[in-house]
Amino acid sequence: MISALHTDKYQITMTYAHWKNGTANHRRIFDLYFRKLPFGNGFAVFAGLERAIDYLENLRFSDEDINFLRSLNDEFDEEFFDFLRQFRFQGNVDAIPEGSLIFPNEPLLRLEGNVVELQLVETALLNFIGFQTLIATKAARIRHLTDGELLLEFGTRRAQEMDAAIWGARATYIGGFDATSNLLAGKQFGIPTSGTHSHAWVQDFHSELEAFRAYAKAFPDSCTLLVDTYDTLRSGVPNAIKVAKELQAIGKNLSGIRLDSGDLAYFSKQSRQMLDQAGLTQTKIIASSDLDENTILNLKAQGAQIDGWGIGTKLITSYNQPALGAVYKMVARFEQGNWKPTIKLSSNPEKITTPGKKTVYRIIDQQTQKAHADLITESDETIDEKKALTLFHPIQTFKRKRVQNFSAVPLLVPIFKQGKRIYSLPTLQEIRQFHDQQLTHFWDEYLRTLNPEEYPIDLSQKLWDTKHQMLESIHREVKDRE
Amino acid sequence: MISALHTDKYQITMTYAHWKNGTANHRRIFDLYFRKLPFGNGFAVFAGLERAIDYLENLRFSDEDINFLRSLNDEFDEEFFDFLRQFRFQGNVDAIPEGSLIFPNEPLLRLEGNVVELQLVETALLNFIGFQTLIATKAARIRHLTDGELLLEFGTRRAQEMDAAIWGARATYIGGFDATSNLLAGKQFGIPTSGTHSHAWVQDFHSELEAFRAYAKAFPDSCTLLVDTYDTLRSGVPNAIKVAKELQAIGKNLSGIRLDSGDLAYFSKQSRQMLDQAGLTQTKIIASSDLDENTILNLKAQGAQIDGWGIGTKLITSYNQPALGAVYKMVARFEQGNWKPTIKLSSNPEKITTPGKKTVYRIIDQQTQKAHADLITESDETIDEKKALTLFHPIQTFKRKRVQNFSAVPLLVPIFKQGKRIYSLPTLQEIRQFHDQQLTHFWDEYLRTLNPEEYPIDLSQKLWDTKHQMLESIHREVKDRE
Repeated sequence: MISALHTDKYQITMTYAHWKNGTANHRRIFDLYFRKLPFGNGFAVFAGLERAIDYLENLRFSDEDINFLRSLNDEFDEEFFDFLRQFRFQGNVDAIPEGSLIFPNEPLLRLEGNVVELQLVETALLNFIGFQTLIATKAARIRHLTDGELLLEFGTRRAQEMDAAIWGARATYIGGFDATSNLLAGKQFGIPTSGTHSHAWVQDFHSELEAFRAYAKAFPDSCTLLVDTYDTLRSGVPNAIKVAKELQAIGKNLSGIRLDSGDLAYFSKQSRQMLDQAGLTQTKIIASSDLDENTILNLKAQGAQIDGWGIGTKLITSYNQPALGAVYKMVARFEQGNWKPTIKLSSNPEKITTPGKKTVYRIIDQQTQKAHADLITESDETIDEKKALTLFHPIQTFKRKRVQNFSAVPLLVPIFKQGKRIYSLPTLQEIRQFHDQQLTHFWDEYLRTLNPEEYPIDLSQKLWDTKHQMLESIHREVKDRE
Repeated sequence: MISALHTDKYQITMTYAHWKNGTANHRRIFDLYFRKLPFGNGFAVFAGLERAIDYLENLRFSDEDINFLRSLNDEFDEEFFDFLRQFRFQGNVDAIPEGSLIFPNEPLLRLEGNVVELQLVETALLNFIGFQTLIATKAARIRHLTDGELLLEFGTRRAQEMDAAIWGARATYIGGFDATSNLLAGKQFGIPTSGTHSHAWVQDFHSELEAFRAYAKAFPDSCTLLVDTYDTLRSGVPNAIKVAKELQAIGKNLSGIRLDSGDLAYFSKQSRQMLDQAGLTQTKIIASSDLDENTILNLKAQGAQIDGWGIGTKLITSYNQPALGAVYKMVARFEQGNWKPTIKLSSNPEKITTPGKKTVYRIIDQQTQKAHADLITESDETIDEKKALTLFHPIQTFKRKRVQNFSAVPLLVPIFKQGKRIYSLPTLQEIRQFHDQQLTHFWDEYLRTLNPEEYPIDLSQKLWDTKHQMLESIHREVKDRE
């Protein structure tokens, strides 16, 4: 169970202030989204929803939590603690399923509820979804370059504490990795686990050969040997070949060798040749050593003979961009019997919110089954798939495209209705397969890792009009005041 | 309780292979250390030990863990699970206390035990200590530039999952931060918590003034108002001043205002002037918005009038270097009744390990109380403080310095003896004060954030000789083989 105190203090002080002010029950809608794709990638992979659902479903303030809040002596009235003690998340949540390809500025979660429950959950939702989405996206970039090859997540020791290792491993599996070294993630999520031995194992014996033999004896059916402790080509690979022959003598095969340092392009090509010459064409070559999508791309350009990749630090910490920067903004409030859209201005046009209760459709060509664009609409709009649809860029509005024979697939699905979960959670395998299947709906121009085309995220005419009318009316107001 | 499965699978496969091979009880010594200071800083701040101690003290394989391992169908013998079921950490551990200033290549933890217990704990120790040390170091960099100012940790929403937020907050407190927004860290560690309100609070009312008044009513004694939702200088600050006057009328003071966007240098100077002109000289100005030590330094150079800093993403994720890269290496094995030093070679000289069971002294001048250097020695050496001591650079050995009238303060303290904890844990307050006090032993040339002097980490003559004799003898062996 996730503590209700996994949050910023200001969520509690604002809850208190609303409670005190008599405004705690005001109805609001918040969107969770991000503004900019990480790593210069053309898409992101949505992950973290299951964790968020678990949090919302079980959110309670325990007596211990309340005692702690009381101990702060922070001007809270004692009756406020009764309010917290009875607090349950009662809102409605719609969300995009995990594994989906997602894009900037589209609502990933849309929450409708009273203002305090929506505030209270902000920090934890951003924390869970931001991290897993970031790591799943990084994993998908690596997967894109390594079709059909083995991808192993090895980052636990360098992860930012324990949860990052576990939930990060889950996210890499969604993004297309095959296995993790993290046993807890294996236990908790059923992800295949992988691991052989370290340099310390080899050093612990009087010779490398002795170390290899001892390891092969323990794991005759799944033996991968680390060959770079002393000298990869003069000692490691020849010793591995010796052990492979000994395994063959008892009817077993050496599964693989692992290279963890040095010139991986050169060593892998030489090792492949040596293994092949010894008839060990089935023995795989696994590489590790500070890898990411850029080093993998370079190794491939050099013709490296690598069948599997163990990726650690740079993946699990998302080294070149360790935060997604997801945000959570109020988009509508219920007043006098109606939902009123709200907008947040900013001198930075990218930070202006898109107002109102919205939904998102993926416009998919019926013939090619490829996506044209995502279309954000007001939630009460309908799209007539039988008619032509004009899509236009929300800022450079002259960029227009007319599409016909499309399916408008709604991306948001109902998760909670008045605090009750109505969504049945897919298994992690299903999420991973769903992700894989979703990739097929996108042209490779959007998927490539370097300089991808920008996939269109458009607003319906009605939503665009609402947004621009609100902007104009605010500008008029400001002008009137001056 | 931390799961025994918070580890890499290869720690279990190696444990199994040792158990199978009859070598599980061989005695070894491992050092945990790092090779390179993060962020170009002149020192790091050691943190994470308490978490590591908790882990070692309670390390057990539960029935559930064992069932999971069994379910992997990974060639493990059934009796191996009995071995795991009875497994307890029985080793000796010496470590540097948390809050210490630490440097590359000195043992931070020295573990002595049997090879499997030392292997099994590697991943978790690196995970815990690497992360907290990284964040405490980042925090100390920020603290160095903000003497006497308020430092608030605001990173939870952007942290890499839940544990990173909690343990990261702890590390920032050790590094000199005053408070965190994370309530769970407040509850778990007694760290002061801090938080006011967000833009959403302001947007939720029909006017900014109404929002400010409602918040001040709830928190008359500790009210900090966020003034940048609409227009900082034309709306936010004037409204905050209005509310401050209303608070004064009931005998209260406005604690502060917070700036979260825009030109913080300009806005802070203007805001200070407006507050002062209104007689609100006690009202503090807090700044937040993607800050780190570099932006703080720049703001100060521009004469920004900021009394307190809220630091989020860049601190909690250690944005510009999200992993410390700590390592864990075997340095000695017990053979034929003696400890034999071991060495790990590398084509990269910085990656060559320093062999043997070692200890570390901080050589402190008795008059100035400033540190000359850290000196790594073999563990059975003694240092005579009454004699002169010659310190020399371990690579550029011509760099020499003779010191007299010094104290040789041992840095490693005993933590576990045969699996029993013999160290009484300091409180977090004590750790923080200890860190603060440790800083006084270092010349500012080592502490500055940009281009610090390199603090000397030297080897004793005896240790240097051992290391170089081993290197030579390996070179001879290799030559003989060729």
